[in-house]
Amino acid sequence: MNQSTPIALGLDFGTESVRALLVDLAGNERASAVVPYTHGQITETLPGTGEKLPADFAFQHPGDWIDGAAQAVRDALKQAGLDGSEVVGIGVDFTSCTMLPALRDGTPLCLTERWAEEKFAWPKLWKHHGAKSQTKRINELARSRGEKWLDRYGGIIGLEWFFPKVMETLDEAPEVYEAAEVWLEAGDWFVWQLVDCDAEQLPRSTCQAGYKGMWHSADGFPSREFFEQLHPRLADVDAEKMPGRFLAPGESAGTLCSRIAEKFGLPAGIPVSAATIDAHAGVPGAGAAGAGTLVMVMGTSSCHMLNADAEQNVPGVAGIVEGGILPGFFGYETGQAAVGDAFDWLRRTTGHDDFDQLTKQASALPPGAEGVLCMDWFNGCRTPLMDGGLKGGFVGLTMNHGPHHLYRSLMEASAFGVRWIVDLLRENGVPVTELVATGGLPHHNPLLVQIYADVLGLPITVHPSQQGPALGAAILGVLAADTDHQHFASTAEAVTAMAGPKPDDPSRQAKVVEPNADDHQIYESVYARYRRLADVLAAERF
Amino acid sequence: MNQSTPIALGLDFGTESVRALLVDLAGNERASAVVPYTHGQITETLPGTGEKLPADFAFQHPGDWIDGAAQAVRDALKQAGLDGSEVVGIGVDFTSCTMLPALRDGTPLCLTERWAEEKFAWPKLWKHHGAKSQTKRINELARSRGEKWLDRYGGIIGLEWFFPKVMETLDEAPEVYEAAEVWLEAGDWFVWQLVDCDAEQLPRSTCQAGYKGMWHSADGFPSREFFEQLHPRLADVDAEKMPGRFLAPGESAGTLCSRIAEKFGLPAGIPVSAATIDAHAGVPGAGAAGAGTLVMVMGTSSCHMLNADAEQNVPGVAGIVEGGILPGFFGYETGQAAVGDAFDWLRRTTGHDDFDQLTKQASALPPGAEGVLCMDWFNGCRTPLMDGGLKGGFVGLTMNHGPHHLYRSLMEASAFGVRWIVDLLRENGVPVTELVATGGLPHHNPLLVQIYADVLGLPITVHPSQQGPALGAAILGVLAADTDHQHFASTAEAVTAMAGPKPDDPSRQAKVVEPNADDHQIYESVYARYRRLADVLAAERF
Repeated sequence: MNQSTPIALGLDFGTESVRALLVDLAGNERASAVVPYTHGQITETLPGTGEKLPADFAFQHPGDWIDGAAQAVRDALKQAGLDGSEVVGIGVDFTSCTMLPALRDGTPLCLTERWAEEKFAWPKLWKHHGAKSQTKRINELARSRGEKWLDRYGGIIGLEWFFPKVMETLDEAPEVYEAAEVWLEAGDWFVWQLVDCDAEQLPRSTCQAGYKGMWHSADGFPSREFFEQLHPRLADVDAEKMPGRFLAPGESAGTLCSRIAEKFGLPAGIPVSAATIDAHAGVPGAGAAGAGTLVMVMGTSSCHMLNADAEQNVPGVAGIVEGGILPGFFGYETGQAAVGDAFDWLRRTTGHDDFDQLTKQASALPPGAEGVLCMDWFNGCRTPLMDGGLKGGFVGLTMNHGPHHLYRSLMEASAFGVRWIVDLLRENGVPVTELVATGGLPHHNPLLVQIYADVLGLPITVHPSQQGPALGAAILGVLAADTDHQHFASTAEAVTAMAGPKPDDPSRQAKVVEPNADDHQIYESVYARYRRLADVLAAERF
Repeated sequence: MNQSTPIALGLDFGTESVRALLVDLAGNERASAVVPYTHGQITETLPGTGEKLPADFAFQHPGDWIDGAAQAVRDALKQAGLDGSEVVGIGVDFTSCTMLPALRDGTPLCLTERWAEEKFAWPKLWKHHGAKSQTKRINELARSRGEKWLDRYGGIIGLEWFFPKVMETLDEAPEVYEAAEVWLEAGDWFVWQLVDCDAEQLPRSTCQAGYKGMWHSADGFPSREFFEQLHPRLADVDAEKMPGRFLAPGESAGTLCSRIAEKFGLPAGIPVSAATIDAHAGVPGAGAAGAGTLVMVMGTSSCHMLNADAEQNVPGVAGIVEGGILPGFFGYETGQAAVGDAFDWLRRTTGHDDFDQLTKQASALPPGAEGVLCMDWFNGCRTPLMDGGLKGGFVGLTMNHGPHHLYRSLMEASAFGVRWIVDLLRENGVPVTELVATGGLPHHNPLLVQIYADVLGLPITVHPSQQGPALGAAILGVLAADTDHQHFASTAEAVTAMAGPKPDDPSRQAKVVEPNADDHQIYESVYARYRRLADVLAAERF
């Protein structure tokens, strides 16, 4: 160990760019640098050949991940005036399920001469939507076989997940499927590059595997019979093409290899954490240290995550994964498909340039928006109904209502959506005791946070979390390094020290929004109406 | 008979003014004059005393009716260059239920010295809403007694009707109730003034009595027992305070008396028709001559009227009256509470100054508004649910929808509302074979008429009917005069000759909008969704 202040490095891989964050172990930011991917999202034409891609395809270039991260780390070190020797741990969060086929030596198939011109050899970005029919077949077969793992995902798996994407390639380009020696998540591939180990030791994240890959800590992947019925060639997909070992985010995947160390301007040997999904890194990034704290990451859509001490199958909860968010906990993931997006839709639809007047007038309305009731399924229902085909709506309208009634009812509907999730978790024995709101929305929209607090009847801590996932990744890097508890006595202590609210640090000045008891009482009956409306709209599928 | 072209006079009493229309027996307009009422609507203070009126009160001044009509007739005669001797018949339409207490000599109570300063002695305008509790009591008692007349009104009577207004005065000012020797509709009062007969011969219109007064051609008024249970003092209300005889619009009430003839600049002795309600005069005014033609009078709200050869109780149809619209037919009245009003609400709510862009974009959408489904109950549901407390809504919304989707779905909902009414009539054995659209809306909104035609699967004749009710009243005047069929062989012939479509007359150039068969097919399933949504919203009362 050198004598300088220890520093953690978080690498946050987004859809358009990668961010490197350097923080000390009190969570003070030392530097942050963002580098856009050279190839961006690859959605129009295939690099090299110019082949036009179908409308629902979206790829990335593996070179961008390595080169972009190298540049970002070098920029950040320079900005902070560090030489790299101070870095004690590295954490990585990635979009998911972004995945690729590779060789056993780690080479992405798309970077081999043989396969570079074949589109199905390229990494599929999380938002690649080419696997519609495969998703349908997986769900139908799982349902008809009564696969119990389906319950962990609320009874349905998603179009953007791992095996639909693998199977799409098997269906559309079987020769690429055959040539792939290793199928893996991009986050795992990146960590594998950092630690440079044999394919058999390849560090696979329990987070990605659990939330996007139908994997379970005790049961593993779905059975050979299931895969065989899906497609004979898939029968041994995991044994044949998915080598590696499972590690929770925060567990050590190995240490930085000299090849990457040189590229990044870091010394070799720094411990590296197993990867995690970007949204999930936001949980430690928002200072949520223990069981029972629901972290609401609120933006265009919302992801609500919770650590718990036990595993309970909760109907409609999309993913429950041991070590899925932090080591030692069961991570629960839930979500709402349209939040900020829906507010913006309402703003446009009512002819407003900004939210100022809408917000002012909506604030003046009483709870319940004078009878207007909204269903917030403008992009389907994620939790608990897991049905992308459901639609939004407004009822209770009279000619006395205006745009501000619609807006307030939409904010209330969004709050009722969270309330439903919290009720569901509690009814199934999963404690929810604290609420932390983070992401862009809570800071811009205090009325929304107040409505959430009033509807839920609980205080909400608004955490600034300006580096959200990158800070979470840095914390995971420290956890991976700190196996001897030299820095922190526990995971909770590390999270609290590095990301918990801190009044004298502007980036961590959490604000607590208290519920109003009278308004909470009023919302109890409005929420009951919302649930009746949800029943009706789900049953009728208007 | 003089040798000049015979002329008919229609007097159309609206909320703000009275119109006199002179037409020949081919329906050619000779002159038209409008005179605003001197006192307008009396809603703020009582004339004479300045007493401030409650918010839901609305009166009129009987002097305005006589003086206004006199001025309008004189103006019209002058304009047409007629001396009055050409007028062969007079018809009168009036707002309803506008009603008043009078003495047996015809003097309005409010024009007597004793009662002029008592507000309950004044004529209550149709929109006077002071009788809320009385309406509730009448409905509750009728329901508890299982009164069969309630079925003719779809199971509920309205706040603006005759007996609630009588009973309000009995409750609030019993001395006025006692002083009233005759309670009657304003239209009947006006015709009574024209023909100047004994109170026992007072010509009461079957239209007003049937649609607003719970009267039936065979059963008369509700029973003595019913009225007695309502209020002991009401037991003999009809025998005691409602003298007269019932006449259908188009039947002769008598001939013009010399007092009024002199005032109006007409010769005495001209036959006068029994009064009718303004909206109902629109049926002959739109050239609808016989059974089976639904006349859709479309404006801020819509009134859909139909003549049929037989009486069928149709659940939810607000009024079925023998001779209610034209002699020899059973008149059916139905309606939609928010049409143009709701369109205007949508325009405002989506931030548009006019309908140009909305209409252009809505026209380009396919039937079904790409999944958006609207319930048009923004002002409750008139026919068939007769429930002012029901609310409007939109379902099926996603973030891909814009204001024009809402607008199109609202127009479609309005069409589905008519479709429901037509289905209901037909299912109950009342033929509907033709559709005529009139009022302001069809002329301004051709897209709406096309949607109506497509949803209903029937051609729609858009009738300009620029003088609508006034022309209908003039036709009724001719019918009253033409008992010997000197002019026309039948009612139908008179209506067709005077108001039917006529290509070479701009005021009668009807346009026929044909349904598109493909779109009609699509709408069949959207309509089924609309009906399911109606069931759900009515049951849940969101």
